[in-house]
Amino acid sequence: MGALDEGCLNLELDIGMKNGCIELAFEHQPETLAIQDAVKLLLQGLHEDVNREGIKKTPFRVAKALREGTRGYKQKVKDYVQSALFPEAGLDEGVGQAGGVGGLVVVRDLDHYSYCESCLLPFHVKCHIGYVPSGQRVLGLSKFSRVTDVFAKRLQDPQRLADDICSALQHWVKPAGVAVVLECSHIHFPSLDLDSLNLSSHRGFVKLLVSSGSGVFEDESSNLWGEFQSFLMFKGVKTQALCRNGSSVKEWCPSVKSSSKLSPEVDPEMVSAVVSILKSLGEDPLRKELIATPTRFLKWMLNFQRTNLEMKLNSFNPAKVNGEVKEKRLHCELNMPFWSMCEHHLLPFYGVVHIGYFCAEGSNPNPVGSSLMKAIVHFYGFKLQVQERMTRQIAETLSPLVGGDVIVVAEAGHTCMISRGIEKFGSSTATIAVLGRFSSDNSARAMFLDKIHTTNALKTESSSPF
Amino acid sequence: MGALDEGCLNLELDIGMKNGCIELAFEHQPETLAIQDAVKLLLQGLHEDVNREGIKKTPFRVAKALREGTRGYKQKVKDYVQSALFPEAGLDEGVGQAGGVGGLVVVRDLDHYSYCESCLLPFHVKCHIGYVPSGQRVLGLSKFSRVTDVFAKRLQDPQRLADDICSALQHWVKPAGVAVVLECSHIHFPSLDLDSLNLSSHRGFVKLLVSSGSGVFEDESSNLWGEFQSFLMFKGVKTQALCRNGSSVKEWCPSVKSSSKLSPEVDPEMVSAVVSILKSLGEDPLRKELIATPTRFLKWMLNFQRTNLEMKLNSFNPAKVNGEVKEKRLHCELNMPFWSMCEHHLLPFYGVVHIGYFCAEGSNPNPVGSSLMKAIVHFYGFKLQVQERMTRQIAETLSPLVGGDVIVVAEAGHTCMISRGIEKFGSSTATIAVLGRFSSDNSARAMFLDKIHTTNALKTESSSPF
Repeated sequence: MGALDEGCLNLELDIGMKNGCIELAFEHQPETLAIQDAVKLLLQGLHEDVNREGIKKTPFRVAKALREGTRGYKQKVKDYVQSALFPEAGLDEGVGQAGGVGGLVVVRDLDHYSYCESCLLPFHVKCHIGYVPSGQRVLGLSKFSRVTDVFAKRLQDPQRLADDICSALQHWVKPAGVAVVLECSHIHFPSLDLDSLNLSSHRGFVKLLVSSGSGVFEDESSNLWGEFQSFLMFKGVKTQALCRNGSSVKEWCPSVKSSSKLSPEVDPEMVSAVVSILKSLGEDPLRKELIATPTRFLKWMLNFQRTNLEMKLNSFNPAKVNGEVKEKRLHCELNMPFWSMCEHHLLPFYGVVHIGYFCAEGSNPNPVGSSLMKAIVHFYGFKLQVQERMTRQIAETLSPLVGGDVIVVAEAGHTCMISRGIEKFGSSTATIAVLGRFSSDNSARAMFLDKIHTTNALKTESSSPF
Repeated sequence: MGALDEGCLNLELDIGMKNGCIELAFEHQPETLAIQDAVKLLLQGLHEDVNREGIKKTPFRVAKALREGTRGYKQKVKDYVQSALFPEAGLDEGVGQAGGVGGLVVVRDLDHYSYCESCLLPFHVKCHIGYVPSGQRVLGLSKFSRVTDVFAKRLQDPQRLADDICSALQHWVKPAGVAVVLECSHIHFPSLDLDSLNLSSHRGFVKLLVSSGSGVFEDESSNLWGEFQSFLMFKGVKTQALCRNGSSVKEWCPSVKSSSKLSPEVDPEMVSAVVSILKSLGEDPLRKELIATPTRFLKWMLNFQRTNLEMKLNSFNPAKVNGEVKEKRLHCELNMPFWSMCEHHLLPFYGVVHIGYFCAEGSNPNPVGSSLMKAIVHFYGFKLQVQERMTRQIAETLSPLVGGDVIVVAEAGHTCMISRGIEKFGSSTATIAVLGRFSSDNSARAMFLDKIHTTNALKTESSSPF
């Protein structure tokens, strides 16, 4: 090895350093390679060409997302907590509780992501933690989030996640007690029988509120719990929805409940590919909570095969307008929910599609019909996709059916931007495709966009799921 | 060096590896050491004992926060964009815009933090980016956030940040055009003349909306801008507040505008300490926008000296209740705004304090008076603090003035949890101190907490600034 020049020693080996110990670069580690191979097999199982430009690097990106998303197995709570316990006095005199002795501290609205152990999809966790310091010391506030992340970045179920956070803080901080409330939301699980797709109540998320308490918070009917919950209610948390019965927590994952009539046959090779992914993440696939996970994950994935949902188009013939063309009127189909899978990360994106087109005054107000519209939206949604492409494909398919003038807008939340990497909670993406008159007529576009705005503004809680 | 056993080679040197090149560990790098020395001097300038337990490691934490917070100087947009440009077709046929050719794409609500170059305090940025793809290619959605972070993680002003993001995306992605809107919010700047502290209009934040456009978005009166703004209005962005005149952007930082009558004399040694920090961050302190920054930063810091704001307590004697004690009634002072500085990171935390105590029926409803209450809140706020301690100190000071029974709640947003490290936007912390009757009487506590809840629920936009 060359001498140390200006403090820079060039090592040609493709290696990295960690705590003074040389480690194989991430992309060459056996776990990364094993996950990549498994993902390639899954892509082929979805009838995809693994050399297609958009997904050539998908196996590596998925390996990176999954290994980053489960880094909690390798993290230690002690490393975060021990250096962040600060001496803090209690009351100098007088009867009461405050500061480092008895003054309740509540840290609210910590956004995190975890992986559902039932179906391997990420779920969102809004975490709220209360604790009563004792022994004249307090924990640095950001460490509540660090400790939550150690357990969230694993395959989890909401109740165990709450219990893990609570018992770890109780063990390492040794306060009078810890209380944890988690607001969990899991993406809705579509099943391809079209009726469930028409579910207007589908709001994109299944919600669950769980809690855990230790020490003075063990008794969840205590006054102290009541005070902790008051602090959450100040911020709009609906604590009355707290679920305290174990069984309904077990069933919270939509993949467990979804009784899909069209449960697709699952290829055993694909099942063993998912089992190998679980092993590469350091999990035991035979653990009782994981036994059915590969099949459930595949049930979700197979919604997005390259070829499914034969389109109802072939029996549809666009309404012929005969005789003199009367004034055309803007017709809108708004807030149609959709699911899709980002082809770059194999993570869901979900949201709503809005469609506008012109139809002659007095003619059938909706020559294409909502159910066909929804079928077209789902046809292109249920693919490995990119939002820009999905929007274009819906517009191109509709254009000949509605006389050539069509505008399509999609608004979606992307789990790959929220659950990993940049972790930008609350972010969303809108895309637009315009054909025919909508591409040149500014006022037509403005009229359609205004329709979306006024319709959604009227709804107190907009129907869009993000 | 030992042989490579199981891929792990132990190097005893206290070094790290980066891109195959050995680098001094962070804590031993000259820039880190220089910032630590400067911060020690500033702490002494605030009459603090640098060996006090709570702030012993503060110089290192501040060095880490500042160097992480300005890592953008060392990052290259090219590294994020080049590997994330995906081929994406436009329309197969027909007239229109969609997909990789002309279909407007809007990424909304990206939360970031930047450092104000006028006063060195972090400011929040909610970033919205629109672009019109061309050349049949699209950018991976998360890269808009990565590119924003390259420029946000610097000393900035809102307009230049918007222009930097816009021109970088235009240069590296080469779309038909890019549009950027930033919603910036900067913590209000207190000045110690108590009148400004009574400002009920103080909402904790100064807000500014700026924009930048390139290519087809250069003309901000174009229809395309209108459509981009519609997509932001769907999410409640008040685009009508867009500020398009350069001078008011220059003045947006409260430190520039705040005409404090009590502008404290600034110690030249402290000024040169801040100048040395700027240099260690790779900045040129003689850059015109930074000339006055050290003094402005110190103007903010000197609000939090160990001894300031002589308390109005000495002339106050608690109302003596003579004769038979009538039924006592709960009296509440809610939503009193405060600023404080986290002693661990020298970053602001800000929010509201709520105070409750009992006074005899028919007696003067507010024996202590709101202005004295506020003076006590500000006295303990304007320190290097920990929220648990501030809450306790306020309670202990009030207790003898109100007959021993007092409850104090503080609710605050901590910039050190939002602008750095865990970056948990929207998180907040509540603390409570109870003395006398409030420590044993559950219903008294519940009554007070309920008062906070109902009062804030009535206000559509709760007065609390986070």
